[in-house]
Amino acid sequence: MSYLTMSGIALENEYEKERAKFSALMAQNLQLDLSRGKPSVEQLDLSEGMLSAPLTGEDCITEEGIDCRNYGLYEGLPQMRRLFSELTGVPEAQILVAGNSSLALMYDTISRAMIFGLAPSPRPWCFEEKRKFICPAPGYDRHFAITQRFGFELITVDMTDTGPDMDTVERLVAEDPTIKGIWCVPMYANPTGVTYSDETVRRLAKMKTAAPDFIIMWDNAYSIHDLDADGDKLLDIFSEAEKYGTEDRIFYYTSFSKVTYAGAAVAMMAMSINNINIMRPIQAVRTIGYDKINQLRHLLFLKDAETTRAHMKKHAKIVLRKFRILYDVLQKELGDKGIAEWTNPRGGYFISMNTMDGCAKRTCELCQMAGVILTPAGATFPYGIDPRDRNLRLAPTYPVDEELVKAGQVLACATKLATLEKLLQKRAF
Amino acid sequence: MSYLTMSGIALENEYEKERAKFSALMAQNLQLDLSRGKPSVEQLDLSEGMLSAPLTGEDCITEEGIDCRNYGLYEGLPQMRRLFSELTGVPEAQILVAGNSSLALMYDTISRAMIFGLAPSPRPWCFEEKRKFICPAPGYDRHFAITQRFGFELITVDMTDTGPDMDTVERLVAEDPTIKGIWCVPMYANPTGVTYSDETVRRLAKMKTAAPDFIIMWDNAYSIHDLDADGDKLLDIFSEAEKYGTEDRIFYYTSFSKVTYAGAAVAMMAMSINNINIMRPIQAVRTIGYDKINQLRHLLFLKDAETTRAHMKKHAKIVLRKFRILYDVLQKELGDKGIAEWTNPRGGYFISMNTMDGCAKRTCELCQMAGVILTPAGATFPYGIDPRDRNLRLAPTYPVDEELVKAGQVLACATKLATLEKLLQKRAF
Repeated sequence: MSYLTMSGIALENEYEKERAKFSALMAQNLQLDLSRGKPSVEQLDLSEGMLSAPLTGEDCITEEGIDCRNYGLYEGLPQMRRLFSELTGVPEAQILVAGNSSLALMYDTISRAMIFGLAPSPRPWCFEEKRKFICPAPGYDRHFAITQRFGFELITVDMTDTGPDMDTVERLVAEDPTIKGIWCVPMYANPTGVTYSDETVRRLAKMKTAAPDFIIMWDNAYSIHDLDADGDKLLDIFSEAEKYGTEDRIFYYTSFSKVTYAGAAVAMMAMSINNINIMRPIQAVRTIGYDKINQLRHLLFLKDAETTRAHMKKHAKIVLRKFRILYDVLQKELGDKGIAEWTNPRGGYFISMNTMDGCAKRTCELCQMAGVILTPAGATFPYGIDPRDRNLRLAPTYPVDEELVKAGQVLACATKLATLEKLLQKRAF
Repeated sequence: MSYLTMSGIALENEYEKERAKFSALMAQNLQLDLSRGKPSVEQLDLSEGMLSAPLTGEDCITEEGIDCRNYGLYEGLPQMRRLFSELTGVPEAQILVAGNSSLALMYDTISRAMIFGLAPSPRPWCFEEKRKFICPAPGYDRHFAITQRFGFELITVDMTDTGPDMDTVERLVAEDPTIKGIWCVPMYANPTGVTYSDETVRRLAKMKTAAPDFIIMWDNAYSIHDLDADGDKLLDIFSEAEKYGTEDRIFYYTSFSKVTYAGAAVAMMAMSINNINIMRPIQAVRTIGYDKINQLRHLLFLKDAETTRAHMKKHAKIVLRKFRILYDVLQKELGDKGIAEWTNPRGGYFISMNTMDGCAKRTCELCQMAGVILTPAGATFPYGIDPRDRNLRLAPTYPVDEELVKAGQVLACATKLATLEKLLQKRAF
């Protein structure tokens, strides 16, 4: 029965019941973590073949005669660029294969713009008295943190079911030349799971921007992370941008971090040829090249787009099972209470949950008291402040199944208790 | 017989002889490269054990329970920090183990100072109207390129047999607050092979600097790259700096790039705890961590300082053999000509050769005509301009022995011809 239609006495009863339940959960001294989108050990084991394959020096010589054990080849192995091209649809020539972290590539892009500016910049960004960045929210905390660290004012725009609220985005970027860019996770967005609609992609490519050097940070982290057999389809933003001559605004990233090993995989970035030509001499000063042996190990294991997609189906099976465990607990415990909603994404790593307004922080706090770590409430918003204090990002992939059930129970009980505390103006613990 | 004491006719005869020899060399259509300090295939093969060792998921769990296959541990594996500590003498707590490129770590240090400044900076470096950096020359071209790219004026200071000319360094940094730092390769310096004397290290640690945020970029790339049984000893700069309270000025780098695989190894940086505390939150925004699986593979292969040093002796044997091949050719062909000198370093990757003034560029050009690529003359000086046009950096490690003999012959012949051209004011080709 929904809390919203319960009598005061019924609520009091519910409160006592949940408080007792929560006490019992606290007594279990749990130590569980739903805070980060980390693959589970079971998922990591899927790539054992890469880890265990012995290589010889001979294996390290590519068909072009490149020795992966030695310096050089800043752009990455040609075969690796081809694989990323097959998977993303971006032409090979626009792709650079890099090290283990796509986040670092994003940071480096903004860092370069700060010091050197971009081709159409009137001046390096560090000399702009004001600089702003659009952060669709709920969104990815680490994106927001980069632009915050570089001194941008973070502009919150609502995430909708089709991507960022484009009416607002278009209006803002058209009138404000200090807005230098927007963060996007266009497929299975972190944390809402939304895939941008074709119209959203088109409008992002087409929109007029007051800043000549406005950029779209296109973090397509989950592009091959479908959970259903028929995954979402994302319109190719480079093709759209070419229609409007805006391809220089697109900075595209993805990685194999959640394909093989988190933090020990291979990342890539893609951009217009124009931007490659500008970036290349700066990056060539920074490094002679990225780790080609790890690129090679990935190639030998992932082989081609088809084999990679088959590998991703094994991940999907595990991730979907975890998602369903958490759904089931939430549905059973909260389904009829009318106090929370959660997403059921078709890909990616997160479930996004909204509590009643003003209950997210307290839910998080209660969970922590019972030994369940959630991503801090507010983290999915700029500056870590959720104006309605309702969004929680749930990352169900890492815990083993039994722990996940337990964590779900704590979360559900904490959500109920936090809501009841608010409705009754009491404090359980 | 020395060219300097030859008669005009003898020089003419020599000229004709060398020109004929050079024509014959050109006719061989060689394709040889002495330009970069790359390990040879024979050296790369020394680390085959690392490449070929199959790992299991279980191997990836460290004694602390860290799964190297998953996110986290920004500072790098504890055992890896310990190994670097044993090898460098720098306390573990000051060491961060990173990715495959120490050059990238250096670039990132300057980049951070540009945008955020250092602790004692009056303002971020990008806001300094003038900024300068001391470049001991001959020195490492990629160092100079970083500061040039970031808009520093490069100040040339002579390299002596004991390190940079400290009288000049001390005077410059004491009087000019726009001088923000100095590049140093303190052991087996690139390209002269000099190891800084204790006095030089002490003076660098002790010197008064007009800039409160002056830094010493301490690229100890060749710290374990001895060629002789008794390697050079370098004074520990952190210990010295502590005596004068200047440890915040030291930024220390090294890597295993020439221990295992060039471009696929593990780099580290070390700094004062104060600087770690300042850098850490910025770097934590950039990446969740570096590739721990590659760190683990290195650990399993290199084991400890003793095993690593034993491994380096195998490298030394190969590198020393290459060095001697080139010495022998140079000695035989140029030893009595009085027109060139070259170093005989006790470690590192380079031989530094000085021709007669004004002959380096032409020597380089002639070599190229005969299919032998040298590092461009001037590269070892700021802006690529050697004021005396005499220094050549020779990298003998990469070619196989027979090629190296051939390359040495071309180099010697080109040196003679370039000198004779100058003395006789003629042009051979």
